[in-house]
Amino acid sequence: MKIHKGLDGVIVSETKISAIVENQLLFAGYNIDELIKENVSFEEVIYLLWYLRMPSNEELSCFKKELYAQMPISDTIVTCLKIQTRQNLHPMSVLRSTISLLGVFDPDAEETTNTATYQQSISLQAKIPTIIAAYARLRKGLDPIQPKTDVSMAENFLYMLTGEEPEVIKVDAMNKALVLHADHDLNASTFTARVCASTLSDVYSCITGAIGSLKGPLHGGANERVFEMLREIDSGDLSVEEYLNQKLDRKEKVMGFGHRVYKTEDPRKKHLKKLAKELTTISNKEQWFFLSCEVEQYLKEKKGLIPNVDFYSATVYHCLDIDSDLFTMLFAMSRISGWLGHVYEQKQEDCLIRPRSYYTGPKDLKYKKITNQVSFGGIEA
Amino acid sequence: MKIHKGLDGVIVSETKISAIVENQLLFAGYNIDELIKENVSFEEVIYLLWYLRMPSNEELSCFKKELYAQMPISDTIVTCLKIQTRQNLHPMSVLRSTISLLGVFDPDAEETTNTATYQQSISLQAKIPTIIAAYARLRKGLDPIQPKTDVSMAENFLYMLTGEEPEVIKVDAMNKALVLHADHDLNASTFTARVCASTLSDVYSCITGAIGSLKGPLHGGANERVFEMLREIDSGDLSVEEYLNQKLDRKEKVMGFGHRVYKTEDPRKKHLKKLAKELTTISNKEQWFFLSCEVEQYLKEKKGLIPNVDFYSATVYHCLDIDSDLFTMLFAMSRISGWLGHVYEQKQEDCLIRPRSYYTGPKDLKYKKITNQVSFGGIEA
Ligand SMILES: CC(C)(COP(=O)(O)OP(=O)(O)OC[C@H]1O[C@@H](n2cnc3c(N)ncnc32)[C@H](O)[C@@H]1OP(=O)(O)O)[C@@H](O)C(=O)NCCC(=O)NCCS
Ligand SMILES: CC(C)(COP(=O)(O)OP(=O)(O)OC[C@H]1O[C@@H](n2cnc3c(N)ncnc32)[C@H](O)[C@@H]1OP(=O)(O)O)[C@@H](O)C(=O)NCCC(=O)NCCS
Repeated sequence: MKIHKGLDGVIVSETKISAIVENQLLFAGYNIDELIKENVSFEEVIYLLWYLRMPSNEELSCFKKELYAQMPISDTIVTCLKIQTRQNLHPMSVLRSTISLLGVFDPDAEETTNTATYQQSISLQAKIPTIIAAYARLRKGLDPIQPKTDVSMAENFLYMLTGEEPEVIKVDAMNKALVLHADHDLNASTFTARVCASTLSDVYSCITGAIGSLKGPLHGGANERVFEMLREIDSGDLSVEEYLNQKLDRKEKVMGFGHRVYKTEDPRKKHLKKLAKELTTISNKEQWFFLSCEVEQYLKEKKGLIPNVDFYSATVYHCLDIDSDLFTMLFAMSRISGWLGHVYEQKQEDCLIRPRSYYTGPKDLKYKKITNQVSFGGIEA
Repeated sequence: MKIHKGLDGVIVSETKISAIVENQLLFAGYNIDELIKENVSFEEVIYLLWYLRMPSNEELSCFKKELYAQMPISDTIVTCLKIQTRQNLHPMSVLRSTISLLGVFDPDAEETTNTATYQQSISLQAKIPTIIAAYARLRKGLDPIQPKTDVSMAENFLYMLTGEEPEVIKVDAMNKALVLHADHDLNASTFTARVCASTLSDVYSCITGAIGSLKGPLHGGANERVFEMLREIDSGDLSVEEYLNQKLDRKEKVMGFGHRVYKTEDPRKKHLKKLAKELTTISNKEQWFFLSCEVEQYLKEKKGLIPNVDFYSATVYHCLDIDSDLFTMLFAMSRISGWLGHVYEQKQEDCLIRPRSYYTGPKDLKYKKITNQVSFGGIEA
């Protein structure tokens, strides 16, 4: 009997959505290097992950129209965001609640036909940038900005954050970051969405659950912690080496490093590193790029650790003028495209995901009202 | 290479919380038959699942005090419930959002020490009956009722629903139902909670995700559908046989039947069946019990299908005067005790749950802007 802790290497489902093949990442057959080289838009990638093929020009423009139509959020959602911003707590908790509330307010949330699933997917994908931008403004006491209906999702998001037309190079970087984070085989949040979908629960439940998992520091929550670390090094008295050595000695994980599947190189890193370099250069923030390179170099030499998708994306987002506690939201804004594809795919399977555990406690205990008892472990508060 | 669709029989973790051993269900070493025979309170079972031992009398009374102190819900939560009741949508969606909002409003939600996890667990376990009862009243236009501080959780819940002192036999049945649903190895919602916990995400994220999975009709969502089916048979023109034959011919699953692990008998069923019999007798609702027996009998003969925990619990809840669309909430009110134990246990593991998929799509596609494309499957809307 083997205990598959972490399900390392265990194959749970077939998929046509994405694949890690020989250290390369494919989206429905297209290498991400190809998608980046060709400057493919995030909208095309969403289409690709859902339809498993690239759209024709006409299909793409129809698809964009469907998205545009669903971008605005209701006054009720804005009210709910306002109630939540009063608290100033973790943005990912707000996103989790707000996506869940979208489900409460969707009169068709319980519809399970493919058409309904598709409509819900369009609505969620379209609204998530609007929600994030609205939240980012509301917590600063600013009014939300309505989405435009004729610009890319990347541009729209940056526009809704500030109300100003973003620079082309930033729009391009935002688009590439969205493309690179869009899907990734059965990562923990996608798997959460699939487990939920396997009970035939509704799409909103699946995405709410996925957001909760993405929030974790061992998963998407790493990117905001990366920038906290860079700031800490930058403003502290320790050298990069001293800082990292102390961290490693305390047995802490360095955020943005290591990966369950990639052991020599994360194929997304080179693209994000390049973007980080370009953006820090144009915005006079080279210090973050150089510091990042130093951290990368030292951890490679010292521990053979490699940067994952979250390491350089932190600097990219910082250069896009995004507050570091919102970074994981940006990951969600992209990964939701993959989640929705996987939810659809899992629902077609109609097979409950329900593993087993191995019980290591006592058996056959007899109940009696007692005053003292032997402990077998459990909570230590 | 094997694809473990549904993770059937795959062991993902060790646990000391609960076990299915030879068709018997144990909670930290105690057979549920023993717990039911001894009339153990739900509070004792919560303690058992969290501390992995029974409390002494003194420990139990301290534990209850901790729970009592956390039962009331804030005005903000009541406001959020009111906003949600306007919509009259699925109660489990409301519960999912409201638990998520509790996380937004908890200033310590991001604390990850064992003490913080314990406090969050107490708060969630204590507040969930209050939230469910408040929602049940608000949607009928009634004001929520404050919890008492000196009665059992089972009694308190029934009291908060109606404002009246519930009959002893009903309190007893409610308590037994809570005990029987409290935990169950790695069922899909518990597994969802553990996947989320494995990313080191916060407790609220884990429980919100679990609620989303429990909601699914192949999991906890079955119980409300059981009662819909009984009503449909009762009010329709078809005999039980005809009704079920038609359902099976349409390849529909009969809700409340079948189980991934139990193939001959679900050990919880006999207790729930007994409760259903007693309650229908005292409340002049025998028709539902007899009808249920007929359904059980026929599916056994025809397909060898066995009732699971959701089948007779539907009739039990109906006799407790609970609206059928709230049944899955009652499941959640109990199962949250197990979820919280598992979240704690998983966090001690510190091992990301991250499986793999098997890619069956094309590779090495080249991107070009095109007007027509071959399809490889994917969404059909
Ligand atoms: C992503 C991650 C969870 C993968 O974990 P995993 O496949 O279970 O790998 P392990 O945790 O078993 O790591 C293997 C070894 O490398 C070490 N390691 C892995 N990532 C590390 C990191 N970021 N910092 C320090 N050490 C790390 C582990 O301590 C372990 O060392 P050991 O063998 O001496 O115990 C892990 O690398 C991590 O926690 N990274 C930091 C968080 C992060 O950036 N997450 C985003 C992922 S996209
Ligand atoms: C619980 C459940 C998901 C377990 O599923 P599973 O372990 O994957 O078992 P399968 O779905 O492979 O079922 C095995 C066979 O029994 C049949 N079966 C199982 N449960 C059935 C049900 N409730 N009604 C009709 N047929 C059922 C399946 O159709 C399958 O038949 P086949 O071999 O001819 O295809 C499944 O029994 C079910 O959907 N039940 C109804 C929902 C329910 O009550 N859920 C609450 C569980 S506590």
